[in-house]
Amino acid sequence: MDQQAAIDYAPQSDHIAYPGIPFVVRAADKGDVEEAIVPIENSFEGIVTYTVDLLIHESDLKIRNEVIVPIHHCLLTEPETRLEQIEVVYSHPQALAQCRNYLMRNLPNAEHVASLSTASAVTDMQESRSRHRAAAISSHRAAEIFDATIIDANIEDISNNQTRFVVLAESDHEPTGNDKTTICFDFAQDTPGILYHTLGELARRNINMLEIESRPDRRSLGQYVFLIALEGHREDDIIQDALEGIRSRASMFKVLGSYPRAVSPD
Amino acid sequence: MDQQAAIDYAPQSDHIAYPGIPFVVRAADKGDVEEAIVPIENSFEGIVTYTVDLLIHESDLKIRNEVIVPIHHCLLTEPETRLEQIEVVYSHPQALAQCRNYLMRNLPNAEHVASLSTASAVTDMQESRSRHRAAAISSHRAAEIFDATIIDANIEDISNNQTRFVVLAESDHEPTGNDKTTICFDFAQDTPGILYHTLGELARRNINMLEIESRPDRRSLGQYVFLIALEGHREDDIIQDALEGIRSRASMFKVLGSYPRAVSPD
Repeated sequence: MDQQAAIDYAPQSDHIAYPGIPFVVRAADKGDVEEAIVPIENSFEGIVTYTVDLLIHESDLKIRNEVIVPIHHCLLTEPETRLEQIEVVYSHPQALAQCRNYLMRNLPNAEHVASLSTASAVTDMQESRSRHRAAAISSHRAAEIFDATIIDANIEDISNNQTRFVVLAESDHEPTGNDKTTICFDFAQDTPGILYHTLGELARRNINMLEIESRPDRRSLGQYVFLIALEGHREDDIIQDALEGIRSRASMFKVLGSYPRAVSPD
Repeated sequence: MDQQAAIDYAPQSDHIAYPGIPFVVRAADKGDVEEAIVPIENSFEGIVTYTVDLLIHESDLKIRNEVIVPIHHCLLTEPETRLEQIEVVYSHPQALAQCRNYLMRNLPNAEHVASLSTASAVTDMQESRSRHRAAAISSHRAAEIFDATIIDANIEDISNNQTRFVVLAESDHEPTGNDKTTICFDFAQDTPGILYHTLGELARRNINMLEIESRPDRRSLGQYVFLIALEGHREDDIIQDALEGIRSRASMFKVLGSYPRAVSPD
């Protein structure tokens, strides 16, 4: 699905696949690629904490854009395997969880085995062929890449399964008139109402908050960094004022970028 | 670590182990056990979304208590294996992530393989003995249960790694004078400032908010359910008033329970 996001975002550009989010981000940090595209939120699982923590704590890259991709899972096998022969199902634990009802109905006796990604689930399946008849939950695209057979499609239990990706680069996006801005901050002291008064900087200016997430500050349990997405561009006067107000109340404060709002493709 | 939490919480009681969070919660829902103990937050990874989503969407159990357990990872092997012989390391992806620097320093060439839990990492390691020399990242307790050898302890990259568990039961806890209350709610319409005005119900009464989390509402991307923990018991007059104020602004509203605040053991 990462490849799908890259194709949707920049169909004419060269795409390089990396073996995981940290490798993608490091490639952009080092300048090996112009832009990096990584998942940040799924409509069912919530935020991708790995990406959010990387943006908060480790990378200085900015969010330049976002892309929303619908997620569909397929059941892949070796060419000769039939549904009723499957003894083992490989996939990433999240994909297994998203197809739990399908698996209970159609493969109630199959063992579930965790893979590091939905792509590696296909190679895990292929490498296990001498030991058992297996299947992998993965994407349409993985079936093409690894030459596996799709024996069932759209096997996810939920509809409206979408993942939002962000495009990271050295700088964010110029204003387009329909933008959002993502910031993160924490507080030096945890006094009653401090988050409330900080959100007042937005409410009082009638700025719409699209999202608020809290992440552990990694120092002690119960201390948080907040990530907020709001409507508007950081160069808009009213947003500038609001961000200045938030900055003055916060300890750490970072603008992660302003960028055009994506529309859902479904 | 789940067993450690159960022992810390109720050393004299009988404990039954289940193969995962949904099984533990179902056992309490059905009345097979009096109380269920499940992880809800880690100081490094953040909330355990599986537990939070279950409390929001599926279970009517109440939070009766909480327990904070320090987390330490060990490197386990077969008795005859030496550190420099290890070709493969099994563990849950989160545990592998939490020991990444240790593994890069001490086992730079070992392959990482995902297991469904830190406990099953030990059996995965033992069952793979004919194929390669392997290790598992797991707990002290798992080493005892599965009769594995601990060749290194406290191998986690971070200090202050703690997990908070909640005790679930049919009813929550009576007031003790040092309590917290967890609620969840969503809004029918996403109007600017709606969360801000709702948090005002707490701020205006000087009630300390300890935690705010947002979770996808599972219907569409960008729509959220909020989970809030606050200082005080739902039977306190001031908390009752605040909860009434929040309920009147919300669409869905649920009190997940009032219970004594745990102290960190470290």
